[in-house]
Amino acid sequence: MPIVVQDIERPDPALVARLGAAGVATVHEAAGRTGCLHSYMRPIYPGARIAGPAVTISAPPGDNWMLHVAIEQVQPGDVLVLAPTSPCDNGYFGDLLATSARARGCAGLIIDAGCRDVRDLTDMGFPVWSRAISAQGTVKETLGSVNVPVVCAGQAVAPGDVIVADDDGVVVVPRGDCAAVLQGADKRVAAEEAKRARLAAGELGLDIYDMRGRLAEKGLKYV
Amino acid sequence: MPIVVQDIERPDPALVARLGAAGVATVHEAAGRTGCLHSYMRPIYPGARIAGPAVTISAPPGDNWMLHVAIEQVQPGDVLVLAPTSPCDNGYFGDLLATSARARGCAGLIIDAGCRDVRDLTDMGFPVWSRAISAQGTVKETLGSVNVPVVCAGQAVAPGDVIVADDDGVVVVPRGDCAAVLQGADKRVAAEEAKRARLAAGELGLDIYDMRGRLAEKGLKYV
Amino acid sequence: MPIVVQDIERPDPALVARLGAAGVATVHEAAGRTGCLHSYMRPIYPGARIAGPAVTISAPPGDNWMLHVAIEQVQPGDVLVLAPTSPCDNGYFGDLLATSARARGCAGLIIDAGCRDVRDLTDMGFPVWSRAISAQGTVKETLGSVNVPVVCAGQAVAPGDVIVADDDGVVVVPRGDCAAVLQGADKRVAAEEAKRARLAAGELGLDIYDMRGRLAEKGLKYV
Amino acid sequence: MPIVVQDIERPDPALVARLGAAGVATVHEAAGRTGCLHSYMRPIYPGARIAGPAVTISAPPGDNWMLHVAIEQVQPGDVLVLAPTSPCDNGYFGDLLATSARARGCAGLIIDAGCRDVRDLTDMGFPVWSRAISAQGTVKETLGSVNVPVVCAGQAVAPGDVIVADDDGVVVVPRGDCAAVLQGADKRVAAEEAKRARLAAGELGLDIYDMRGRLAEKGLKYV
Amino acid sequence: MPIVVQDIERPDPALVARLGAAGVATVHEAAGRTGCLHSYMRPIYPGARIAGPAVTISAPPGDNWMLHVAIEQVQPGDVLVLAPTSPCDNGYFGDLLATSARARGCAGLIIDAGCRDVRDLTDMGFPVWSRAISAQGTVKETLGSVNVPVVCAGQAVAPGDVIVADDDGVVVVPRGDCAAVLQGADKRVAAEEAKRARLAAGELGLDIYDMRGRLAEKGLKYV
Amino acid sequence: MPIVVQDIERPDPALVARLGAAGVATVHEAAGRTGCLHSYMRPIYPGARIAGPAVTISAPPGDNWMLHVAIEQVQPGDVLVLAPTSPCDNGYFGDLLATSARARGCAGLIIDAGCRDVRDLTDMGFPVWSRAISAQGTVKETLGSVNVPVVCAGQAVAPGDVIVADDDGVVVVPRGDCAAVLQGADKRVAAEEAKRARLAAGELGLDIYDMRGRLAEKGLKYV
Repeated sequence: MPIVVQDIERPDPALVARLGAAGVATVHEAAGRTGCLHSYMRPIYPGARIAGPAVTISAPPGDNWMLHVAIEQVQPGDVLVLAPTSPCDNGYFGDLLATSARARGCAGLIIDAGCRDVRDLTDMGFPVWSRAISAQGTVKETLGSVNVPVVCAGQAVAPGDVIVADDDGVVVVPRGDCAAVLQGADKRVAAEEAKRARLAAGELGLDIYDMRGRLAEKGLKYV
Repeated sequence: MPIVVQDIERPDPALVARLGAAGVATVHEAAGRTGCLHSYMRPIYPGARIAGPAVTISAPPGDNWMLHVAIEQVQPGDVLVLAPTSPCDNGYFGDLLATSARARGCAGLIIDAGCRDVRDLTDMGFPVWSRAISAQGTVKETLGSVNVPVVCAGQAVAPGDVIVADDDGVVVVPRGDCAAVLQGADKRVAAEEAKRARLAAGELGLDIYDMRGRLAEKGLKYV
Repeated sequence: MPIVVQDIERPDPALVARLGAAGVATVHEAAGRTGCLHSYMRPIYPGARIAGPAVTISAPPGDNWMLHVAIEQVQPGDVLVLAPTSPCDNGYFGDLLATSARARGCAGLIIDAGCRDVRDLTDMGFPVWSRAISAQGTVKETLGSVNVPVVCAGQAVAPGDVIVADDDGVVVVPRGDCAAVLQGADKRVAAEEAKRARLAAGELGLDIYDMRGRLAEKGLKYV
Repeated sequence: MPIVVQDIERPDPALVARLGAAGVATVHEAAGRTGCLHSYMRPIYPGARIAGPAVTISAPPGDNWMLHVAIEQVQPGDVLVLAPTSPCDNGYFGDLLATSARARGCAGLIIDAGCRDVRDLTDMGFPVWSRAISAQGTVKETLGSVNVPVVCAGQAVAPGDVIVADDDGVVVVPRGDCAAVLQGADKRVAAEEAKRARLAAGELGLDIYDMRGRLAEKGLKYV
Repeated sequence: MPIVVQDIERPDPALVARLGAAGVATVHEAAGRTGCLHSYMRPIYPGARIAGPAVTISAPPGDNWMLHVAIEQVQPGDVLVLAPTSPCDNGYFGDLLATSARARGCAGLIIDAGCRDVRDLTDMGFPVWSRAISAQGTVKETLGSVNVPVVCAGQAVAPGDVIVADDDGVVVVPRGDCAAVLQGADKRVAAEEAKRARLAAGELGLDIYDMRGRLAEKGLKYV
Repeated sequence: MPIVVQDIERPDPALVARLGAAGVATVHEAAGRTGCLHSYMRPIYPGARIAGPAVTISAPPGDNWMLHVAIEQVQPGDVLVLAPTSPCDNGYFGDLLATSARARGCAGLIIDAGCRDVRDLTDMGFPVWSRAISAQGTVKETLGSVNVPVVCAGQAVAPGDVIVADDDGVVVVPRGDCAAVLQGADKRVAAEEAKRARLAAGELGLDIYDMRGRLAEKGLKYV
């Protein structure tokens, strides 16, 4: 049952880069308000911003063996995504693994567990979004799988899906949806530009979005 | 039932400013150790410090419509306070709403839910204290109310009450108590100044506060 | 029953300093993967790094009286460790207590509860690892004990045990184990140096640690 | 500041009894979907069902002194409502206090903290809704207040407000709203009777509530 | 985007029944230790035990409209599985919906949110596994989808997958894996029978499973 | 480092039985309000009540191998106490292990993790106090230790310490303190008998405990 899928399909890097530029909130909205991982997934330092295809890892609690296996599967620009098979906050990942992942061109790690050596990772500029920061170590005793579908922090992630992560958290876009989502994101960004200027000038959302009629109809009373 | 109260009484801005200068911990103590919102309410960036009258919002889970309604009610210096009607960590508020709120002179947002676009909000210097950072979007389908009494993160907040927020969290002072609390805060600050110097010089709190007798009387044994 | 033990044995300061230099993750591993406090114990500002003997405090919920008592027992380099007798996130510790503790040479505070005045503590450079930041005040009514064994954030801590804390969290080393743990830590650091260079050059952990045979034997399939 | 308000207004007992008969879910809906305490408030045994005016208690964490004070204020049918001033799960209440409260005619306890002796309380048939069951004891050192407005498990409760509690949790109805809420509840119960029969016969809510048109209009597609 | 898939493939009812008889723990083990929903999913009353194909619901927080839509899709023996699009503990489901679902032959509900009217549901014998019991009501304003893949309490569930639920919680088996999992489950049950008798007779697992050699080899010391 | 201590000292069984009869709350109070495990430790069925010497287990997350090792060390009346080395809710223990433990005379299990087969355990009358009920399985790959000091659910437990558990939770009494704690418990029970009768007759705790003077002195005002 434990397997490593070596040949996964990756999305068009140009699309991935443009999704990354749009950012997590915009991509999530453009995807029909889907794909956000739980809000407990936080970056270990502010300002990081990445996008890339997922190399997924299903790992037992407290066992980081599969991270070593997964790094061999990383291609430049990939994002590692680790989901433990049961809730765990151990520190699966530290500066040595980051050094190795970096050498393969890995863009960052999304882990529904803990990471450690966060000072070193910050100095290296290796970004991690995790549910915990923990020095608690792991073992290398039990197999898991690499590049199989996983559920990470409440979202289904398939290998090759696009991960976008920034200060707002993490969103996943199914590989086949990239082009459509990007189109939506572009429209959204354009529309927001115009609105931002009007809002900054003091115009109200109530008027820009023409909400007053519908509010009254639903029964809102001003007193 | 959903209403917008348009005319609320606000406290004397001079008192508000002085409460803000005293800071959350001092104001809370001066208020008889009352008014602190739950400690999970954290600023999205360090160093922010605000005080202002509350414009309150009661909103359904996952629905940020009332924020648009509330912004029209904001006067310069006001603080928006949003309480969802049931626990929710969705990102109700982002950079567009912040741009709009800022244009009305809003001092910041206290939200017992999530906010997003935190990089933009940080760059704008628009402070938010929230229970979560989340890109998860909201809808605009269900009414709530503006400027009604709410319970936000464990504290009752009425419109026009004073909100003070800094790196220690958020405290609310009932509008009618401002003057009395400020008086207590001023005394406290003065007393602390003197004590700080003595403590820095190595004198012990045990002696400054004359605690040794009472400790012995209660039965503390030194071994 | 409430007691203050005045005379505790402290470890060799040279060992303590070297454990601090090794850092939390390395010390934890060298100690046979033991001693980490719960991952919810987070520093109030990034970059702090301390090591020192524990002066322990068992305190009631919402009562910080024993902190005043404990500060008298602090010797230069000591670390205060406070465990409430039941879960509590009140702000037991602020800038006045920090001023006093600093005057005694205290290196920092580990508290399985809350602290406040975090802006002032940050400006002072007084490091605290806590489960919460909270302005909620405490009383001084009920006794506890100082320099007795406690359980803090899931770990047993005896007075004089070594506390090491950094951005990864907090670890405790029993006083008698310092030399052995340090030896392990030194070996670990040396081994990591060599591995880091090889990993940075693109060699895989799978090869450096010779894992391929054991993975195959356990049944890992590459597909 | 610590006070005991001895003379509170209580609602009409006949209204209270009828609200109790309607149950928590119905009352909450009839009150415009308001008043539910957090869902972590659970009964210590199944099947209990009470309604009564609130005698409120604001108590420090880990200190149950005010329960003794409050019991003197209890009149037959009253419900004790305790809110700690900061989060706490200590066991404030056990069989001796229940014996005393029962002797005064107390209908039950709502406590946003812990209770203990739950086997005895169950045998006595004294119902408690609490956030925790805990043997951890409390002290009697610090004052609080009785019959002041409190926030309990996320809801504002004033003395004399009606508490309704059953297996679904706890709801509070402001004293002045009892008659209106009851009217709504009665209508709701009547309407539900008719619907229940139709639903049991296999008719669909989609048809009974005439939802198909609005679903289509909103854009729901059947595939 | 909101859709209702009306025609889903269901597994062989005979396999489903046998999986149900095997129970959650056995099925999970037989499935290679996969498929368990989070342990916070608890039955509203003890002793319930169901198995059936999933009719899935993706619903907004605080909005139970899609439950009405889904019930029309239920065939006898089906299990409703509701996943909110963001964390929510509202009471989406009560006795009226249960009456309707029961009339369609629904076997039970798995909901990563709240349910209410638990006394009535218990009396009806309609089993629910939920993360919360809550009287907090919902609205009917925003669409979701029925019979699309969802993530419920940490597990991916596709329409037609088999849900098995009992006092140990909930497990999902992909529709295509039923036969293989059942085979494993049968073997497991048979093997356990034999072992149970030996263990009851006082033989040790250490001997039955022949563990002593491997323990020694790994370095376990008896002192 | 992984060891099994085979020869532990156990307390006098007569004392243990009498502590068990006193119950958790009384024992905790008699022990100076110490020893309670976290309140999340709940019995899997109501009404169980045990007391016995602890056979302790330190086990890795998600690995129940050491339970097999520990059962060999159990003597009639012992209580198994398992503490994972990091937070974990996996189901370490089910009906086969219970059958084996029962055959050795084990009185029950205290586990700061999960258990499963709770229906079978209930039918067997094998009591477990756990933080979770979970079918999620474990592996047998990594060693831990048996009969070493552990921290379980926030309390230090040494092998041979007395565990008392009932519907109120779990308390630990250091082996050497049994006689003293029992003496305190006996006094407490006697005192409570007398008080219960007076309270049941309507006398107030305020008078029985003579609290009125001290309340007034502290500043309580009746209004």
